[in-house]
Amino acid sequence: MRILSGIQPSGTIHIGNYFGMIKPMIESQDDGDLFAFIASYHALTSVKEKEVLEQNTFEAAVNFLALGMDPEKSTFWVQHHVKEVLELYWLLSNHTSMGLLERAHSYKDKTARGIQANHGLFSYPVLMAADILLFDSNIVPVGKDQIQHVEMTRDIANSFNHAYGKEVFVMPESKVDDNVATVPGTDGAKMSKSYNNTIDMFNTKKKIKKQVMGIVTDSKELDEPKEWENCNIYKLCELFMNDNELQQLQQRYATPGEGYGHFKLTLLDKINEHFEPYVQKREHFLNNPKEVHDILAFGADKARKIASAKMEIIRDAVGLI
Amino acid sequence: MRILSGIQPSGTIHIGNYFGMIKPMIESQDDGDLFAFIASYHALTSVKEKEVLEQNTFEAAVNFLALGMDPEKSTFWVQHHVKEVLELYWLLSNHTSMGLLERAHSYKDKTARGIQANHGLFSYPVLMAADILLFDSNIVPVGKDQIQHVEMTRDIANSFNHAYGKEVFVMPESKVDDNVATVPGTDGAKMSKSYNNTIDMFNTKKKIKKQVMGIVTDSKELDEPKEWENCNIYKLCELFMNDNELQQLQQRYATPGEGYGHFKLTLLDKINEHFEPYVQKREHFLNNPKEVHDILAFGADKARKIASAKMEIIRDAVGLI
Repeated sequence: MRILSGIQPSGTIHIGNYFGMIKPMIESQDDGDLFAFIASYHALTSVKEKEVLEQNTFEAAVNFLALGMDPEKSTFWVQHHVKEVLELYWLLSNHTSMGLLERAHSYKDKTARGIQANHGLFSYPVLMAADILLFDSNIVPVGKDQIQHVEMTRDIANSFNHAYGKEVFVMPESKVDDNVATVPGTDGAKMSKSYNNTIDMFNTKKKIKKQVMGIVTDSKELDEPKEWENCNIYKLCELFMNDNELQQLQQRYATPGEGYGHFKLTLLDKINEHFEPYVQKREHFLNNPKEVHDILAFGADKARKIASAKMEIIRDAVGLI
Repeated sequence: MRILSGIQPSGTIHIGNYFGMIKPMIESQDDGDLFAFIASYHALTSVKEKEVLEQNTFEAAVNFLALGMDPEKSTFWVQHHVKEVLELYWLLSNHTSMGLLERAHSYKDKTARGIQANHGLFSYPVLMAADILLFDSNIVPVGKDQIQHVEMTRDIANSFNHAYGKEVFVMPESKVDDNVATVPGTDGAKMSKSYNNTIDMFNTKKKIKKQVMGIVTDSKELDEPKEWENCNIYKLCELFMNDNELQQLQQRYATPGEGYGHFKLTLLDKINEHFEPYVQKREHFLNNPKEVHDILAFGADKARKIASAKMEIIRDAVGLI
């Protein structure tokens, strides 16, 4: 069973990304044949600065390798190293009705929020369809906002198969993981870079501490008992502690004498402890960019082999000799 | 000075194509550095049958080689053999406003005529921009209906150059050849496959004769003098005869005793005489498909060399390492 995941190349990642997307992706390497790519072509719909794209692509690679992406077990590459995807994008465009694209929520949402309506943004569901179909993906883990794009992929694949009278493409299924908890940010809202409420596990120790110490709580004093229910610190601790540890923490909440600052330091310790091995691995990759590029080249070779073979079938179907 | 021309891969060509587009293109090989490609990717916006696309691509190559395309002097290739163009197409998409595409006459005209509004059709001006900009084209000979697309190309190139703060792209100019006479069809309207009024110079001798004998004239009898002005036969003869020959023909019109059938046979002789060497060359290529494929591979290598070098500059500008 082939699982396809696209990775947004963004400079900093936070523990909301980690528990919401990265950890499930890393763990899926044990369940299926993971194909994961850093979506550099997609990033161009918003990133128009050379250095930012270069840096973010490299850092995404470093972060995922540090966090457990296994380039032997999985296929891990940078999207623009396998250019076949853009040929498929064009071929699929000719089987994508304008109505389908015009109904895409994501485009409507983005332009409603004032993002410039450019053709890349409009047509990116077709590129996403090409990503998925090029690799005969069975499963595409997505957030709820992306379910429609997988449905569009199926529509496009069906139109294409129908036009040429053969089953060229495998029909993908989206998979929404309901078990993934929404990670709260330091203010209690969903953790998100745009809300400025993140805890960035790969930041400096000092900055991580500042983010954790900034978690919003009620104003109970040291000598008052406190409620762990609905406390943002406790909610974040749930991500890192086992049941035993959580029970102990509940008791500390109930017992006067400690303030929220103490609980925050406990959380900070757990965060640092959890990510310590990844931080070290990340340092290693940051200091050895050639190793990272070699790993990505290896992954691109693996992906290209499959993409080339698939494109030969597709080109033959449409008559591009 | 680099001249870029796209060739629609269509099975049969007629003398309207020849005088309107092919002959000027062939002659432009003496004036500048001609880059001419068979637009197989563009054809996919309308051709959805494998065999038709394969056959039309091959025949377009054969026809142009027969008619004087010089693969040594010029660069002559099939669009999909130089895949870099689709990478550029995506990169340009992110600098193409939706408003620009929505204002394209050609798309509006086509959908108004009931052609299915698919994304390939909508976005083909971006692919045309990629064709032009990938090869640093200076001049793009076009029909009047295509001037807007060259203007769009300039707009897109300007947006891109501006976004990255450097002159990545050369600004192309469209060139409309006002001297090219509109070739009348056998019914007097503009010669066009869709009007079913063509004379197809590479058809069988029998069919060419049938087309010529079908030219519409008035109903003057053998023993009446006839008027060469506004006669469809005469207009077509103008394409093939020198002044001397035309004067002689005018006298035959003025002198009773000959009918339109005679003049048609004169025209037929001139057509056959004019195309005889091309017909033979065409036969040769049709019988030697390997030679044609080798020539196209040679052309693709030439084009790819330039396209790759340009794409390196472009990728570097946007940050795709």
